[in-house]
Amino acid sequence: MPPSERRYVITFGCPDRTGIVARIAAFLAEAGGWIVEAAYHTDPETGWFFTRQEVRADSLPFDVDELRARFAGVARSLGSDTDWTVVDTAERRRVVILVSKEGHCLYDLLGRVASGELDVDVSAVIGNHDSLGDITRAHGIPFHHVPFPAGGKAEAFERVRSLVDAHDPHAIVLARFMQILPAELCAAWAGRALNIHHSFLPSFIGARPYHQAHARGVKLVGATCHYVTADLDAGPIIEQDVIRVGHGDSVADMVRKGRDIEKFTLAKGLRWHLENRVLVHGNRTVVF
Amino acid sequence: MPPSERRYVITFGCPDRTGIVARIAAFLAEAGGWIVEAAYHTDPETGWFFTRQEVRADSLPFDVDELRARFAGVARSLGSDTDWTVVDTAERRRVVILVSKEGHCLYDLLGRVASGELDVDVSAVIGNHDSLGDITRAHGIPFHHVPFPAGGKAEAFERVRSLVDAHDPHAIVLARFMQILPAELCAAWAGRALNIHHSFLPSFIGARPYHQAHARGVKLVGATCHYVTADLDAGPIIEQDVIRVGHGDSVADMVRKGRDIEKFTLAKGLRWHLENRVLVHGNRTVVF
Amino acid sequence: MPPSERRYVITFGCPDRTGIVARIAAFLAEAGGWIVEAAYHTDPETGWFFTRQEVRADSLPFDVDELRARFAGVARSLGSDTDWTVVDTAERRRVVILVSKEGHCLYDLLGRVASGELDVDVSAVIGNHDSLGDITRAHGIPFHHVPFPAGGKAEAFERVRSLVDAHDPHAIVLARFMQILPAELCAAWAGRALNIHHSFLPSFIGARPYHQAHARGVKLVGATCHYVTADLDAGPIIEQDVIRVGHGDSVADMVRKGRDIEKFTLAKGLRWHLENRVLVHGNRTVVF
Amino acid sequence: MPPSERRYVITFGCPDRTGIVARIAAFLAEAGGWIVEAAYHTDPETGWFFTRQEVRADSLPFDVDELRARFAGVARSLGSDTDWTVVDTAERRRVVILVSKEGHCLYDLLGRVASGELDVDVSAVIGNHDSLGDITRAHGIPFHHVPFPAGGKAEAFERVRSLVDAHDPHAIVLARFMQILPAELCAAWAGRALNIHHSFLPSFIGARPYHQAHARGVKLVGATCHYVTADLDAGPIIEQDVIRVGHGDSVADMVRKGRDIEKFTLAKGLRWHLENRVLVHGNRTVVF
Repeated sequence: MPPSERRYVITFGCPDRTGIVARIAAFLAEAGGWIVEAAYHTDPETGWFFTRQEVRADSLPFDVDELRARFAGVARSLGSDTDWTVVDTAERRRVVILVSKEGHCLYDLLGRVASGELDVDVSAVIGNHDSLGDITRAHGIPFHHVPFPAGGKAEAFERVRSLVDAHDPHAIVLARFMQILPAELCAAWAGRALNIHHSFLPSFIGARPYHQAHARGVKLVGATCHYVTADLDAGPIIEQDVIRVGHGDSVADMVRKGRDIEKFTLAKGLRWHLENRVLVHGNRTVVF
Repeated sequence: MPPSERRYVITFGCPDRTGIVARIAAFLAEAGGWIVEAAYHTDPETGWFFTRQEVRADSLPFDVDELRARFAGVARSLGSDTDWTVVDTAERRRVVILVSKEGHCLYDLLGRVASGELDVDVSAVIGNHDSLGDITRAHGIPFHHVPFPAGGKAEAFERVRSLVDAHDPHAIVLARFMQILPAELCAAWAGRALNIHHSFLPSFIGARPYHQAHARGVKLVGATCHYVTADLDAGPIIEQDVIRVGHGDSVADMVRKGRDIEKFTLAKGLRWHLENRVLVHGNRTVVF
Repeated sequence: MPPSERRYVITFGCPDRTGIVARIAAFLAEAGGWIVEAAYHTDPETGWFFTRQEVRADSLPFDVDELRARFAGVARSLGSDTDWTVVDTAERRRVVILVSKEGHCLYDLLGRVASGELDVDVSAVIGNHDSLGDITRAHGIPFHHVPFPAGGKAEAFERVRSLVDAHDPHAIVLARFMQILPAELCAAWAGRALNIHHSFLPSFIGARPYHQAHARGVKLVGATCHYVTADLDAGPIIEQDVIRVGHGDSVADMVRKGRDIEKFTLAKGLRWHLENRVLVHGNRTVVF
Repeated sequence: MPPSERRYVITFGCPDRTGIVARIAAFLAEAGGWIVEAAYHTDPETGWFFTRQEVRADSLPFDVDELRARFAGVARSLGSDTDWTVVDTAERRRVVILVSKEGHCLYDLLGRVASGELDVDVSAVIGNHDSLGDITRAHGIPFHHVPFPAGGKAEAFERVRSLVDAHDPHAIVLARFMQILPAELCAAWAGRALNIHHSFLPSFIGARPYHQAHARGVKLVGATCHYVTADLDAGPIIEQDVIRVGHGDSVADMVRKGRDIEKFTLAKGLRWHLENRVLVHGNRTVVF
């Protein structure tokens, strides 16, 4: 990364009041901070204020730790001790991907990484089947096969957890991983675990959504990228998209068409998450 | 309508087998019928065959009644006594529109009719409020105000029914009519009553779908045009569409954005219905 | 408009540098200004900074003229004497619409105004044919018929100009007005005259774009809402959209499908323009 | 392929007249042919009739060569000696892909093949750079590096031609191959060479379309999959799609967003081509 492209990214939330923008902007201006991108939002229902700012790292006379220490004071003065982050884009993002047998999302993510479009480190891919091991290794990425035998799921999840946590990833991506995360993993990975659900939620929660969609005779099918919570398919939605289907499309056709929307939507959601563009408040997201 | 643009439109359904297309095509070819548009579909799950054909009226040596009488024999020979229609596009389509206070769908339909885009007769508009009376009458269309007082809904629906049935319309359009049709009206108008629901069904069935959508934090809102059945918001879907919303959109913004999708989707569904392009089988539609 | 919903809207552009956001935010914060919505953008190519801010009018201790006077000093201190506006949403927006014979855009705009969705005053509609006079008057809006005879276009444009300028409108909407504005009118109405072109510009500039699109065999047709400039169909683009077409669509079908996109795109562009969301820089727009 | 899923696919075109459907349908019905899918279209401007039919192979008492021989008689009787094809889906489709350095389309196609979604044989990948060799070989597919030195393009194209022709492929895919095919190759591969152009044609023909799009300030960027002809970027269009961009998108962002549309559109166009769904007539396509 050229020095001129290195950024410090600040996200911040607090109860809305006058003077917040002025306070943050003055803090940055006094330090010489060059704001490259800034976004603001206030939710009128909850009265919560949100902002995300990107500052050129080379415009500030101190490093990210010092920025964090100083910004903590700003945040505290605005009544927000914990609802903020400051990250340095020079720290590479680490991602662990969980898969099963369906490979379209994995192929898509690996292709984006290989072509440089998604500039992250895929630390590992973990599969409950080993069918996607070869392609993963062909990309130079470690693949771990963790079988999920009947009666042995708890142990399997323990193994997954230790493999994941060894990398302390910024994102854990459930790329059509067909196992439901236990509540303690949802808690441990809260705000970092992203799922791609193969329907336009809240339609067709649960299993075999394309079959449900076909039976209902809908004219569009969709996909939803959301944060994983203990409540199945009910976590905060990051992104959704749809594609047109018709009477000529069998369930298999819907599955095939839907795959494009799944991989497209997952890739967008993951990018935004890794760029700290997604701020969660309650069960809704602000995507800057 | 110039004679060369007059069409006989045949729709037909029967259990699939070999030779159906040949049988119908031979029947038409022997009479000199010039097929302008033809579509076929077989549903592999139910084994049901569907077709819709448009024939130039001036290519046949007989009128629509004779065509109907002759086609009845073809249909019978293919095992389908009732699942077919033959219509003459020279017979103008009659539409009755039911409204409440929200006018966007009515304004849109009236504009399409006035500009000649939707070449139908709007026989009447019936409102449970009178706020849309003036614009209706400005278009030269009779408006009937039928109040729905608490405790008087049954009588109100009787009045609506007699007003509607007096026109024997090809379509009864619930253009954001906020009353739930009683089961006997659903039955009486089966296959002719179209509703526009302001959500992407089956998401957000029932009241205040935009509020539900906002609370869930979805990233797209939609609309669904469907045939009315006794099961609320569960009738066969004719058309659906969606529009993107974001964290900056309040419920009021979603309502406003959704209106465009509602009127657009209703207009498409109504056009297809009036052109006999929608074939219903069970709870699903084939849209040719 | 309830006092709590009245806003002062500031738009501002200047060469980018550090401290702009801080300067504007401090100015507003010191006066007690409650920012309801704020957006920022810097164009890296031109180095130009843009912002739009909405402030609750009742949060400031002075009126819009005083705000304008004070903000002029802020703007000057940031090196921008002229590239800014301050408007009061309590001043109703005035719109004049120019039409020819095709009514779909006019019907749509009138319906939006009548239903309260587009809360503006349509001061007048001017047509070079009189076929849209009745519907205009039915909405209680004056209609002026200004014929454009061969050899008399210059006089006709003079008459249009005086009719338009009498209202000093915030927007002059060419709603499928089929006459090309002379250069002096483009200059006089610069930044206020919006056109809807019935193609996805820069494809199919000029006459009969749907015929051109059909001949080329494109699979989508579109519409473009743009500011009118002396260079035909080349002004800054505000909004564009497309709709799918296929081999079964004749030119007439494309025209019909395209109409929905035209009216939808024009309505969006007009709303954004009237809400001061569109900032023009060179030949491109920033739409906040 | 299970015997019940094997199909004979017939495409056919001839001057429109009455009795064509009856003639073809009777021919198939007499042989016991079970039509699984059938589509018809007549172009009113050229008076040309098009059809595509899928017949279950196991419903006919003869093989594909016999079907071809017999159908030739039907075609001849309808005035069409050459504008028809009969293919057997049991014959696997062979594809050769030409690439340069940009890998997103190649990664996408290889992923679709590997996951079984696109059930074809990629016979070879040919690159004018070798940067995509490793990933190709990781998928078990031969990669040929053919440099295109200044002054040596003619020889390079000769080498490409012989490498391609050795496989007699059903499709030659220019997957962001940045070289312009010489006229003799366009002729030799007519109807088999597909290109993906990174703009919504006819906008932004030629080089650097995203730069052109950015300069013009468009609000959507697109991609076009078309047959290659000697006239640059002017061949018959198979499929197009667009994606929304805004003032915040740099050229690099447009390039990134456009890639998704490119690979999505190319994959659709290629699938339809290989399924014999694309019938070319003049410079336009019918896509069944």
